[in-house]
Amino acid sequence: MAIEASKEEAGGHRIRLGMVGGGQGAFIGAVHRIASRIDDQYELVAGALSSDAARAKASAKDLGIADDRAYTSFAEMAKAEAARPDGIEAVSIVTPNNTHFPAAKAFLEAGINVICDKPLTTTVAEAEELVALVKKTGKVFAVTHNYTGYPMIRQARAMVAAGELGEIRLVQAEYPQDWLTEKAEADPNNKQAGWRTDPARSGAGGCIGDIGTHAYNLACFVSGLELDQLLAQLSTFVEGRLLDDDVQILLKWKGGAKGMLWASQVAVGNENGLKLRVYGTKGGLEWTQADPNYLWFTKFGQPKQLLTRGGAGAWPEAARVTRVPSGHPEGYLEGFANIYTEAARAIRAAREGKEAGAEVIFPSVEDGLTGMKFIDAAVKSSQAGNVWTKV
Amino acid sequence: MAIEASKEEAGGHRIRLGMVGGGQGAFIGAVHRIASRIDDQYELVAGALSSDAARAKASAKDLGIADDRAYTSFAEMAKAEAARPDGIEAVSIVTPNNTHFPAAKAFLEAGINVICDKPLTTTVAEAEELVALVKKTGKVFAVTHNYTGYPMIRQARAMVAAGELGEIRLVQAEYPQDWLTEKAEADPNNKQAGWRTDPARSGAGGCIGDIGTHAYNLACFVSGLELDQLLAQLSTFVEGRLLDDDVQILLKWKGGAKGMLWASQVAVGNENGLKLRVYGTKGGLEWTQADPNYLWFTKFGQPKQLLTRGGAGAWPEAARVTRVPSGHPEGYLEGFANIYTEAARAIRAAREGKEAGAEVIFPSVEDGLTGMKFIDAAVKSSQAGNVWTKV
Amino acid sequence: MAIEASKEEAGGHRIRLGMVGGGQGAFIGAVHRIASRIDDQYELVAGALSSDAARAKASAKDLGIADDRAYTSFAEMAKAEAARPDGIEAVSIVTPNNTHFPAAKAFLEAGINVICDKPLTTTVAEAEELVALVKKTGKVFAVTHNYTGYPMIRQARAMVAAGELGEIRLVQAEYPQDWLTEKAEADPNNKQAGWRTDPARSGAGGCIGDIGTHAYNLACFVSGLELDQLLAQLSTFVEGRLLDDDVQILLKWKGGAKGMLWASQVAVGNENGLKLRVYGTKGGLEWTQADPNYLWFTKFGQPKQLLTRGGAGAWPEAARVTRVPSGHPEGYLEGFANIYTEAARAIRAAREGKEAGAEVIFPSVEDGLTGMKFIDAAVKSSQAGNVWTKV
Amino acid sequence: MAIEASKEEAGGHRIRLGMVGGGQGAFIGAVHRIASRIDDQYELVAGALSSDAARAKASAKDLGIADDRAYTSFAEMAKAEAARPDGIEAVSIVTPNNTHFPAAKAFLEAGINVICDKPLTTTVAEAEELVALVKKTGKVFAVTHNYTGYPMIRQARAMVAAGELGEIRLVQAEYPQDWLTEKAEADPNNKQAGWRTDPARSGAGGCIGDIGTHAYNLACFVSGLELDQLLAQLSTFVEGRLLDDDVQILLKWKGGAKGMLWASQVAVGNENGLKLRVYGTKGGLEWTQADPNYLWFTKFGQPKQLLTRGGAGAWPEAARVTRVPSGHPEGYLEGFANIYTEAARAIRAAREGKEAGAEVIFPSVEDGLTGMKFIDAAVKSSQAGNVWTKV
Repeated sequence: MAIEASKEEAGGHRIRLGMVGGGQGAFIGAVHRIASRIDDQYELVAGALSSDAARAKASAKDLGIADDRAYTSFAEMAKAEAARPDGIEAVSIVTPNNTHFPAAKAFLEAGINVICDKPLTTTVAEAEELVALVKKTGKVFAVTHNYTGYPMIRQARAMVAAGELGEIRLVQAEYPQDWLTEKAEADPNNKQAGWRTDPARSGAGGCIGDIGTHAYNLACFVSGLELDQLLAQLSTFVEGRLLDDDVQILLKWKGGAKGMLWASQVAVGNENGLKLRVYGTKGGLEWTQADPNYLWFTKFGQPKQLLTRGGAGAWPEAARVTRVPSGHPEGYLEGFANIYTEAARAIRAAREGKEAGAEVIFPSVEDGLTGMKFIDAAVKSSQAGNVWTKV
Repeated sequence: MAIEASKEEAGGHRIRLGMVGGGQGAFIGAVHRIASRIDDQYELVAGALSSDAARAKASAKDLGIADDRAYTSFAEMAKAEAARPDGIEAVSIVTPNNTHFPAAKAFLEAGINVICDKPLTTTVAEAEELVALVKKTGKVFAVTHNYTGYPMIRQARAMVAAGELGEIRLVQAEYPQDWLTEKAEADPNNKQAGWRTDPARSGAGGCIGDIGTHAYNLACFVSGLELDQLLAQLSTFVEGRLLDDDVQILLKWKGGAKGMLWASQVAVGNENGLKLRVYGTKGGLEWTQADPNYLWFTKFGQPKQLLTRGGAGAWPEAARVTRVPSGHPEGYLEGFANIYTEAARAIRAAREGKEAGAEVIFPSVEDGLTGMKFIDAAVKSSQAGNVWTKV
Repeated sequence: MAIEASKEEAGGHRIRLGMVGGGQGAFIGAVHRIASRIDDQYELVAGALSSDAARAKASAKDLGIADDRAYTSFAEMAKAEAARPDGIEAVSIVTPNNTHFPAAKAFLEAGINVICDKPLTTTVAEAEELVALVKKTGKVFAVTHNYTGYPMIRQARAMVAAGELGEIRLVQAEYPQDWLTEKAEADPNNKQAGWRTDPARSGAGGCIGDIGTHAYNLACFVSGLELDQLLAQLSTFVEGRLLDDDVQILLKWKGGAKGMLWASQVAVGNENGLKLRVYGTKGGLEWTQADPNYLWFTKFGQPKQLLTRGGAGAWPEAARVTRVPSGHPEGYLEGFANIYTEAARAIRAAREGKEAGAEVIFPSVEDGLTGMKFIDAAVKSSQAGNVWTKV
Repeated sequence: MAIEASKEEAGGHRIRLGMVGGGQGAFIGAVHRIASRIDDQYELVAGALSSDAARAKASAKDLGIADDRAYTSFAEMAKAEAARPDGIEAVSIVTPNNTHFPAAKAFLEAGINVICDKPLTTTVAEAEELVALVKKTGKVFAVTHNYTGYPMIRQARAMVAAGELGEIRLVQAEYPQDWLTEKAEADPNNKQAGWRTDPARSGAGGCIGDIGTHAYNLACFVSGLELDQLLAQLSTFVEGRLLDDDVQILLKWKGGAKGMLWASQVAVGNENGLKLRVYGTKGGLEWTQADPNYLWFTKFGQPKQLLTRGGAGAWPEAARVTRVPSGHPEGYLEGFANIYTEAARAIRAAREGKEAGAEVIFPSVEDGLTGMKFIDAAVKSSQAGNVWTKV
């Protein structure tokens, strides 16, 4: 029990945060709020929590947001907050995908840092515009590819970078779920199924955008590789569904490594089965999201090791995003919080006109663009008859 | 993905919280603070974070506590806060064991609700005095036997209570760790090992008080049984250690059930291996703290089922303390937060002169006393030559 | 413990068996012999165990084969045994791939039943010739795609056939190993690596023929599906290796199901990681060869079940190939033995001029041909630039 | 895949074997026969398979035993076989416990080696008599405490002996099952439940003798420790059952180590959950019978290692009883076969007037006596009110 207390609680210098989306009945908004609170890095002071005025007000009240900072549109909020001396320093955008771009644009242009849910936008063009805008404004922009916040994923990345696996040959990613096995979107009360299977709100990708892009992001993050081309087989198994619900992709990485990526929303018995395996000339790594405190590592010709968060085999890259000792499991919210806390470090550095240190890691707007290019290539490959496509 | 957002974030009506202990360099203080923030139920506004004045001030500043509410003694804090119109409504006591009693007493007498770390006190007599004081003052008193906050433990308890296992025959609890395999307390920088192996600060029990009592609490909580007698074999394997570091106990429960309890701090390879197994005439349950989102359930003569937090087999008792969907793991901090949030519900009910509903569950001062009686009986049984002892 | 003794030991009416290959220093020969003995269905009475005469004699002596039935060529053995009144009734062919065809042909033509290792031959044409020859001679011909012998695989197949999973949508197979991570064939003492990476002895496929075909066979066996087309990415990661050591394939099954198949000999940390997952409209199944006594089954919307060999959820199709009670693990050799015992049932039925009942299942010469077509299509797809190819 | 073929098949010099018990409808007889065949060390040529004459004949015929060697009593068989020039060299005794002693005595006195099921006898006195008789006759005597045959158990023992764990502090053994949760012996067709719960056939111990003694044997075998005293709590949970069905024991080993042993036949959800954990000053080991190819090993302060049968971390002591490569699971029958093959080595050595080498390991008649003393002490401790009892 090498006890590691939380490295940093920032009660003394919290960042003023606003939120777009996440009102009553939403799912991911609450996740973002918990993530923002775990290390006490933020205080939520403003919100455009719903486009419905009454719900926006009520939701704000629940959350302790003052009445005059409960907005009904992100545009109004960006403008008003930018004008206040105590205005928000950062905004969380937690709406369906189609609102990410206009909202992010509005806040960047108002000089406000952005934490945006994934996928970044609904088109590559929008994503490129955001990249340019971030460059122009110099604001901090984090995309919540939250799985990169898990300590053992940080460690996996560090081990690959340090050459522990040798030259990478294979990167195998999978992300099976089963919650869309039946036509859940036919139930009007199932808001999650509704917008996630609706091209108007999700963009051109269903499963590929919702979870395939997470798996791809994680594969890139850990392996450090860039994709050259892919061949995708997108399927829609549920009759009448408007977007893909299963995704099977062959990958050719630059430099010669190969890989496969499978994401599914119809694989019965899988709750949230994100899994990453990376193999090189000298070693191999395996990690499973549902059991995130463990990282399997094998050096070729030696016994398998079970590395644990906080344990004897933990690297500094994992330890710095760890709050409780080994054997005391951390989970999804703690990993998500790590993205928020890393972003907070960057925002505070920016307050002082500095850049955050190289150890501060969170998915950037460029990573968001990389994800959009992946979705775009996969959709195109599939529509062209499952052919090889450059990203 | 039956998405279940956090049932309640209380930003609009937070409870004003103080903390005793938990200054810079402490471990469990940060855990309590994170737990208090996850559902936004509390705001930390005062602290006697250290008996060292400079450290107390610095720690308070880190945490955003105003200078005039950074105290250097709990007694001063109890008095001053009770006198303020905006004084704290609850206090977290997160010091070594020997301070639990005087601090808890001071705050109860000042009319302030208490959340106290375990074990409740260092003697049964102190514990009994606190029970009486709680009865007299009517204040809310929670003991952080935090493992009762795990959703699948709530479900296990509910399943036993509903008769899913039939009549209980066996309750097997174990809690192996390995962090005291060598004489860690010889290192003056190892503050955790220092006080936890020191009778002056820990009381008469080492391993039995630190983790044995957790295992016992969990066994009682889930099984609903009361202990009749025990026979304990307490060992000190590390030379020169002042308290037990391994505990082996046979249990006779009232009503005829049997059980074994093993806790160890010298079992190499075990990080935090709390495990509970309960068997009845009709079914059996198994749960492991390191993988807390899973609960194994078998009806006699049927295949084993893997029940998951948030999943298809989750009961309402688990769902109401669940924040994220199945497959998105929750961990130690979320379980701990459930104790804080349940206590908050009781405190808010008390604000309004009501009692919390029966569904609101947290370890009480009586549970703390039960734990103290268990420690006391185990120490006495062992000292008398490992003989049967009534609790 | 629904104790199930071995259904049948055949000491009273053993089948006289010969073996081609499998002399001193070989690997798979001993596996076949153990498999043949477990249920006492065969007695080994003749062998062409090595092409080296001295080794053939010595190996025969070790195994209790009489001197005059220790042959140095399969041709000689086929002829001599066919002429004896007590000649062998069946032969096991356990040589490198390139000998399968001529040996199998010789024994079939001599009227002797054949149990042949996989892959069936080195070309599709040879495989087709064997299929025709089996039809003509009416002899029993089993191919040791031994993984179909595992009880829980039998159960998986039965569950799919019975509609427990609904309509099949996805069949995901993988078979990672790591034993060829480095250039093991450079060591002249490594006979296994030597012939398995040598096109002259293995045929056109390396990893695809050695293990990819096992994974494919299992996918077909359990799902009951037939493949329509595939797209393969075969790689050779180890410099100078003559055959593929990693295989990634997309699958389009007839009827609309999709799938992926990955086989690798360079995935560090994987010993023999054959795994099959099948998902349908109503349920899902997962099975892992290294832990073969377990079968995970989920009905959509219900908790996951862990079905165990011999346990409460075992089906008759599993029970009839089970020897010991649940919790007493069976393994690779028992699964292999099931193929031998099933073949013995067919051979004994044929002795009496009957057909074996429908419950008697073993991989046939047609299954062997199906495997050869799969290898052929995968090699062609890959050589043509990873393009879709009909099988 | 360090491929390790079976080290030895003995077709050329099999041992002539007889069997007492194990006729049609029996369970463990078939297990013994398979175990005897796996390495081709024995040929079964005689049997007193049942005390029912017709069943004895029919069972013999099934197994290929000649009519004139199908006996109806062990006494007759011992006499007749001893008189034949081709008489049996060894006998397997696979009856209920109460026949072990008279049968073993008869064969020893007839100069025939004995392989006897466990527990050795029904009383300590009988066991002592057998020990004396073995000493006097010089015959090989193996007791099938078969779990000592598992390769990773051999490795565990070797690692402890080599000091990899340092000085042993804790030995924790458990063996839960659930097959007697209800009153199975009330069903006259359940022969297993019938005799195993019948004091007349089982002796004074139920669960303690049937499986508790296995767990104890394994604990001694791996740890190399001798027991000083125990305190047992034997329970009978099922009403009307004549013997114990749950066993909870505290252990004091000579030299200061401690331990707990739990065995149960009423722990719902446990099929055959034998598990052993050993902890020392430097390291810890964990092994589970249901997954026997794995051995967890932790050096204090280092990551956990998963050692696998046949894998990179396998020791020679495991490799010499291993037949197939890592990742190809071996199971219960292979472990059982290792006892038979080791005994065969001793018997063949004795044929030549030699002793088997020190590497040849199987449970001896002395181990059988140790088991009987354990059962005896546990029963006495429990009957005396769960008090400390010397063994």
